[in-house]
Amino acid sequence: MIIVLRPDATEEQIGHIKERLEGLGLAVHISRGKERTVLGAIGDERVLQELPLAAFPGVEKVVPILKPYKLASREFHSENTVIHVNGVPIGGKKIQVIAGPCAVENREMLLQIAGEIKKEGVSFIRGGAFKPRTSPYTFQGLGLEGLQYLAEAREKTGLLVVTELMDPRDIEMVYQYTDVIQIGARNMQNFRLLTEVGSYDKPVILKRGLSATVKEFLMSAEYIMSKGNHNVILCERGIRTFETATRNTLDLSAVPVLKQLSHLPVIVDPSHGVGKWDLVTPMARAGVAAGADGILVEVHPDPEKAMSDGEQSLKFPVFKEMMRQIRAIAQVMGREL
Amino acid sequence: MIIVLRPDATEEQIGHIKERLEGLGLAVHISRGKERTVLGAIGDERVLQELPLAAFPGVEKVVPILKPYKLASREFHSENTVIHVNGVPIGGKKIQVIAGPCAVENREMLLQIAGEIKKEGVSFIRGGAFKPRTSPYTFQGLGLEGLQYLAEAREKTGLLVVTELMDPRDIEMVYQYTDVIQIGARNMQNFRLLTEVGSYDKPVILKRGLSATVKEFLMSAEYIMSKGNHNVILCERGIRTFETATRNTLDLSAVPVLKQLSHLPVIVDPSHGVGKWDLVTPMARAGVAAGADGILVEVHPDPEKAMSDGEQSLKFPVFKEMMRQIRAIAQVMGREL
Amino acid sequence: MIIVLRPDATEEQIGHIKERLEGLGLAVHISRGKERTVLGAIGDERVLQELPLAAFPGVEKVVPILKPYKLASREFHSENTVIHVNGVPIGGKKIQVIAGPCAVENREMLLQIAGEIKKEGVSFIRGGAFKPRTSPYTFQGLGLEGLQYLAEAREKTGLLVVTELMDPRDIEMVYQYTDVIQIGARNMQNFRLLTEVGSYDKPVILKRGLSATVKEFLMSAEYIMSKGNHNVILCERGIRTFETATRNTLDLSAVPVLKQLSHLPVIVDPSHGVGKWDLVTPMARAGVAAGADGILVEVHPDPEKAMSDGEQSLKFPVFKEMMRQIRAIAQVMGREL
Amino acid sequence: MIIVLRPDATEEQIGHIKERLEGLGLAVHISRGKERTVLGAIGDERVLQELPLAAFPGVEKVVPILKPYKLASREFHSENTVIHVNGVPIGGKKIQVIAGPCAVENREMLLQIAGEIKKEGVSFIRGGAFKPRTSPYTFQGLGLEGLQYLAEAREKTGLLVVTELMDPRDIEMVYQYTDVIQIGARNMQNFRLLTEVGSYDKPVILKRGLSATVKEFLMSAEYIMSKGNHNVILCERGIRTFETATRNTLDLSAVPVLKQLSHLPVIVDPSHGVGKWDLVTPMARAGVAAGADGILVEVHPDPEKAMSDGEQSLKFPVFKEMMRQIRAIAQVMGREL
Repeated sequence: MIIVLRPDATEEQIGHIKERLEGLGLAVHISRGKERTVLGAIGDERVLQELPLAAFPGVEKVVPILKPYKLASREFHSENTVIHVNGVPIGGKKIQVIAGPCAVENREMLLQIAGEIKKEGVSFIRGGAFKPRTSPYTFQGLGLEGLQYLAEAREKTGLLVVTELMDPRDIEMVYQYTDVIQIGARNMQNFRLLTEVGSYDKPVILKRGLSATVKEFLMSAEYIMSKGNHNVILCERGIRTFETATRNTLDLSAVPVLKQLSHLPVIVDPSHGVGKWDLVTPMARAGVAAGADGILVEVHPDPEKAMSDGEQSLKFPVFKEMMRQIRAIAQVMGREL
Repeated sequence: MIIVLRPDATEEQIGHIKERLEGLGLAVHISRGKERTVLGAIGDERVLQELPLAAFPGVEKVVPILKPYKLASREFHSENTVIHVNGVPIGGKKIQVIAGPCAVENREMLLQIAGEIKKEGVSFIRGGAFKPRTSPYTFQGLGLEGLQYLAEAREKTGLLVVTELMDPRDIEMVYQYTDVIQIGARNMQNFRLLTEVGSYDKPVILKRGLSATVKEFLMSAEYIMSKGNHNVILCERGIRTFETATRNTLDLSAVPVLKQLSHLPVIVDPSHGVGKWDLVTPMARAGVAAGADGILVEVHPDPEKAMSDGEQSLKFPVFKEMMRQIRAIAQVMGREL
Repeated sequence: MIIVLRPDATEEQIGHIKERLEGLGLAVHISRGKERTVLGAIGDERVLQELPLAAFPGVEKVVPILKPYKLASREFHSENTVIHVNGVPIGGKKIQVIAGPCAVENREMLLQIAGEIKKEGVSFIRGGAFKPRTSPYTFQGLGLEGLQYLAEAREKTGLLVVTELMDPRDIEMVYQYTDVIQIGARNMQNFRLLTEVGSYDKPVILKRGLSATVKEFLMSAEYIMSKGNHNVILCERGIRTFETATRNTLDLSAVPVLKQLSHLPVIVDPSHGVGKWDLVTPMARAGVAAGADGILVEVHPDPEKAMSDGEQSLKFPVFKEMMRQIRAIAQVMGREL
Repeated sequence: MIIVLRPDATEEQIGHIKERLEGLGLAVHISRGKERTVLGAIGDERVLQELPLAAFPGVEKVVPILKPYKLASREFHSENTVIHVNGVPIGGKKIQVIAGPCAVENREMLLQIAGEIKKEGVSFIRGGAFKPRTSPYTFQGLGLEGLQYLAEAREKTGLLVVTELMDPRDIEMVYQYTDVIQIGARNMQNFRLLTEVGSYDKPVILKRGLSATVKEFLMSAEYIMSKGNHNVILCERGIRTFETATRNTLDLSAVPVLKQLSHLPVIVDPSHGVGKWDLVTPMARAGVAAGADGILVEVHPDPEKAMSDGEQSLKFPVFKEMMRQIRAIAQVMGREL
């Protein structure tokens, strides 16, 4: 931790800060420049996280040296983490595609989608049984019934199930039916939910919050990991910016940034990233080219009739063509699909 | 709802959309301009919320005419809503100050704060018993013990209690101790939590999410109101922007905007808005001048020792001076404090 | 300058950086912690501005200690700067209002506005002769003719003239007619223009760029000052964020932030900040309450017929009422209007 | 144009708006719904650009139907535009790489870079002779001398020259030496500069402004085109967001969005987009995969000694490897490099 003092900081103020830091077991080094005095606190910086140094008189700014996350960091674990979901690896050589409808709408539609994506070599089906909708007046998901259809799809096709958990009270129920838990963007800082999924060992897809920095994103992964569950998959899905031509702004540079800072697998959701079906394929290609370990994409047999996110869902032929294109990019990248 | 068609939309596509809209009970008017054809759907636009019109072939863009919220809107209720908390009005002539520590840290400190703010004429004490912290390694709140200290402070001073609910599983416990529920910025779109607090009649302070538009903010209020609880107080607390000189960017223009669009009371939290104690007083003044119905502010006897948000907490003398200044502004505005 | 090294930085890399810094005349202090080694470079940090330390092998991040601006900083000049425009002070006890149309449209309208605002005690008239318009197909300003009308308004009323300079080629012409030069938000980083106005001594109102941080804003002021012209007035006029309910997001916290960091006067433009006439008065009040030294506001006799910015222009009676309200706030703040 | 009226709009107000629109030669259609009355103005919407309809009493919001740009739009010109720079096409099957230093620093270094990039099959060299620097105290470019070195590099290697124009006063000088003019991000809305380069027929690379929407970006292209110069190449180079892990947020979804809306070539600058050399190659790959027609990249023989942007410049071996990788992606995309 580096503490930069104000030009008018007094000796008394400096002594006061020094004393406080030493009281926490840190060594303190004082460097007096012509314009500024700087204190360096050497030792475990994490003990300082609760000390509001910026509130001390005489302090201009405080600069942390260490990252606030540890378990999620590349320094803690230098090799890429590969997460095995019933034997299917995420984060390895194979790029995984996770496809399916935004919401599970009915049994038939779900089984139809499962059949179609299975044919394309996909291993994971996604579908929401509980839907976070911005309006209280729209479809909120089928709940338990939706989970049962997902389980039936798995039984019939062997596809693994990814579904969202929104409420800690549903965890037992959801865990019975799913292979991977999804934490949605709006819940990325629902710390109670993170704590819950951290105490189970089921893999978690953690979606980046709409206004979350990369650092905050990794802190939320740390939350889950700190409770014991290290099976976290990071998902970039677009951030909120001033641009309105797309639903969100897909931040693909987050893929190599996350890969540098963390050992966790990183996947990309182009559907929510752009919000328009005809932009999904180019962004899926770009995501794979940027180094993503997987693509999460919304597919619907008849988007006009979708109960949510119809605008961004791919019809089967479009999905098939997207698969063909990203498979070619994957090969160039020395990977498989 | 206005549907603007692409220049190359075919008659068949137009017919298909028209049919679909009429099937939903809407009248459709077609206006053919030189460069674009535009469809107007007349009737209850809310039946269209689930129809993904942008996914229909031939559609360029869809423009809603009506606001997606109703109960929260000024049109639904043209008079300002005044919410009475055990007889104390929020949204009336009197501007309410809600003061207290970020987190309840211990009994003594809380009672000391309660005594000090009471002397300044404040009616509400705030304090977190459950804290949403970005790091899993920092203080998470005292839980039940914190709630009990808040209740004791009320008993001793008559101050009304405001505290945050983070988890639907805590609702029974929290409701026993608090007078007003706070939904934090990170939970503004935790729709399950909104649904829960909507089914009780206790007043709710709903904080604006870090990247929530005014429209989304009002939709979250609508969530609560649609379950029967109309006692919602909106709180502007800063949004996330590119600027890093302040913790967030306090969007004070949201105050008159919300007042135009909605009948609900609007308060301002300058502490989280700026994140630095020495900027809180000018922003509290500006908030009152912008037309806020209340100010939510963090106070601590010794911010250097605060277990969270020490940087932005006011010491008692600073708080006292802030009260003096905003009282003067309130009077000029024809209000009281 | 603090240089944080990567955990895997080699001794050779450390030696290389040290050598380079010492070669620039800086003393280097090495602090070896358990997880990170940190270098402190002591001496004039400004010599480092051109050294791309982050490009050196072994470097994780570089943290400047000093601010990159000097002449604009409060440390360089601890007293508030008061700029005298033909004897009229900006930055002193009196809060100055600068009012007028977005664009000078014709002689009659300008003289009418001049007469009306003069009656309200205003000392400055604003009006654009050259207009930066986002569309090439809209009114671009009257040019020289507009400047002449402004000069005539000054002659007739004694009002001082504020007008925008967009192009270095116009500088001689514009300087003949105006008392204060305005540099628009879109030109805040037009460094050639800043250099030009820096070499004259006429006061400059520098508007904050749409996506400029406070630091960048002050660096642009520094540009002007470094050429010799210290008469810079900073103008907050709203930044670009995700919110679309207002034209921009008026960042009023920038007012006290700028006042802390700099000695220069700070004014607020609520018209561009919000973009809607009925939000201008509350934001003008809030700006004064936040500590602004002036308010820049658009006024038009008939906004429906305005050739630009009609949506945000105040009619005379609304302007008059705004003046009354901000005068009251100014008095409470111990200032005059 | 659609004009949505307030629920309380009077018949008189409606009549007034109708009269005004008809006076401009537009047909007006009135649609009276249960909750809102909506006016449709049919005819050339562009005559309305200067009418501040939102300032009319009774108006709630105004929704334009047509895009404000025309020459830049895909509707105006349905085929992709290929721009030929001395016979070298931009926007055709071949993806063009434009490489070189941020600033021309000296003759030797420039000729060395020219030789190296030429070997990799590049056709364009970039280098700044005039540099927009945020600090007045840093290197501002060699000016004319820099232009002469660029011309010498062209003579020696056959590479075509791309360099930035910052000031309309330099246009004659710069045009003597360059093949393509670059308008930097900070000048994207320097409308005078756009007007100038629009009156010559030399190709222009227009960089997207830091906070420019896609619509504003295309409006700036329209500015240039409306003066007669249709040879505009759009360059995505990152936008400003809240994320600080990268210098800017490279908005790759803008590539397919621009391709849909416009016929102009689109290139990507990953160097400024991310600001760190080790993120440039993945983003160059992703840019090509997203459909870009070219990549603009900074290369330097010794980034540690670069006078600007050293952090984001590629050394020759890294550049060579980047070329190999994007060539492979280009082939998969059915293109060449």
